[in-house]
Amino acid sequence: MPVDQVTQNALRHVAHHMADAARVETLKHFRTSLAADNKCDDSYFDPVTEADRAAERAMRDVLAEHRPDDAILGEEYGATSGESGLTWVLDPIDGTRGYISGTPTWGVLIAVSNENGPIYGIIDQPYIGERFEGGFGRAELAGPHGQRPLGVRQGRALSEATVLTTFPEVGTAQERAAFEAVANRARLTRYGMDCYGYALLAAGQVDLVIEAGLNAYDIQAPIAVIEAAGGIVTDWSGGPAHNGGRALAAATPALHAEAMAILQAAL
Amino acid sequence: MPVDQVTQNALRHVAHHMADAARVETLKHFRTSLAADNKCDDSYFDPVTEADRAAERAMRDVLAEHRPDDAILGEEYGATSGESGLTWVLDPIDGTRGYISGTPTWGVLIAVSNENGPIYGIIDQPYIGERFEGGFGRAELAGPHGQRPLGVRQGRALSEATVLTTFPEVGTAQERAAFEAVANRARLTRYGMDCYGYALLAAGQVDLVIEAGLNAYDIQAPIAVIEAAGGIVTDWSGGPAHNGGRALAAATPALHAEAMAILQAAL
Repeated sequence: MPVDQVTQNALRHVAHHMADAARVETLKHFRTSLAADNKCDDSYFDPVTEADRAAERAMRDVLAEHRPDDAILGEEYGATSGESGLTWVLDPIDGTRGYISGTPTWGVLIAVSNENGPIYGIIDQPYIGERFEGGFGRAELAGPHGQRPLGVRQGRALSEATVLTTFPEVGTAQERAAFEAVANRARLTRYGMDCYGYALLAAGQVDLVIEAGLNAYDIQAPIAVIEAAGGIVTDWSGGPAHNGGRALAAATPALHAEAMAILQAAL
Repeated sequence: MPVDQVTQNALRHVAHHMADAARVETLKHFRTSLAADNKCDDSYFDPVTEADRAAERAMRDVLAEHRPDDAILGEEYGATSGESGLTWVLDPIDGTRGYISGTPTWGVLIAVSNENGPIYGIIDQPYIGERFEGGFGRAELAGPHGQRPLGVRQGRALSEATVLTTFPEVGTAQERAAFEAVANRARLTRYGMDCYGYALLAAGQVDLVIEAGLNAYDIQAPIAVIEAAGGIVTDWSGGPAHNGGRALAAATPALHAEAMAILQAAL
């Protein structure tokens, strides 16, 4: 289902409105002594804050008013069906561990998807005031030092590449070993960036982001932003990544192929 | 040698002037396609950028004009002797790996030391526009969302604590094992924050920062800011950390003692 220009503009307008609303809610509690819940079993620490829930509610309120026929998939409040063929995929705070630690690398993720995956996305960092946007012919960063186009960087082989991931653990032991096989051949590896790593790839600052154990709402906005900036995101086998699981994001097809061959050989 | 109130005010004024000058230089090249040199041997990747050198020169120019009798120890241009009994300890870009990756967690570090160690310090993050300041009776953050006092948080045992470090590798294999012995008993461990981790400790967001292989210019400003915010920084044996090496920064004496006992048992 193609989305016409008028609808694209309407979707962009609504997405920015949602991101603005989520900024207000996430910043209310950021760097305050909030109580973090623990929604998972005790083997895995995944805090969910009041800010997380309030930000998703604020975004859903915008959708209820402006896009009542679209479906929603949100981290906090699950799936809401719709009839337009479009789904909003929302992570109100991606990187809750970073959020509760006060780091400026968590983000609000907003994607619009059709039956084939994400077609538009926003990665917003409320504390810095940075918004990375991609889709509908646009790839742009608006931040504290102005606006600039997003674009991946070209021509780096793995030996010259910077690789990012959130956790040194990267999923299972086998997945970690596969990640390390790639990282060991890269020039530089950095950790702890949450969704900000994908934004840096779209901005041409790093070359690869490799993760595992993702949910759809963790990866759909990054896919839209990176693809709009000229990059490529798949799972570790080259298939679609928008349903979550393992993700391999690369600046170029050549680098993507080089990293994927190593991941495959190590699995 | 005590520093009188008039001198304290002059030192603060000069330090902010230096931080402002370093912001200009570091931001000129941040997120541009700069060429990173490699000043170390090929076993250890430590890029030094033109921005690093330009920022230190800009800070030294301020000192030459306003504090010509003070000594200087800078990462890029080494030691300059002085006769006042005070030394400026400068790291123009702490976290050069973060800087070249585009992350917002590197910083400009400025400390003033006497014969006993740092008495005043600034941790500045130019891209976000955040300045963490401590010493001379002041502990304060000025950032994009206004000013607020800095203060460590109280009352967390290690089992409830958040631990930060820059690299999962943390120095030697033995040092890494000791770090992991502490991290394994903490609630949450995060990586990749460079000097920003110390700032978050002073801001009451995290409880411990543990690092190794530091230089004096990496740790003196963090010591001043954290101590001013009510925290404690020593080496892993409880001795002074201001000459570099291993650092253990903690929000409270109890948490410091708990972590140090584990580090000592593991070494």
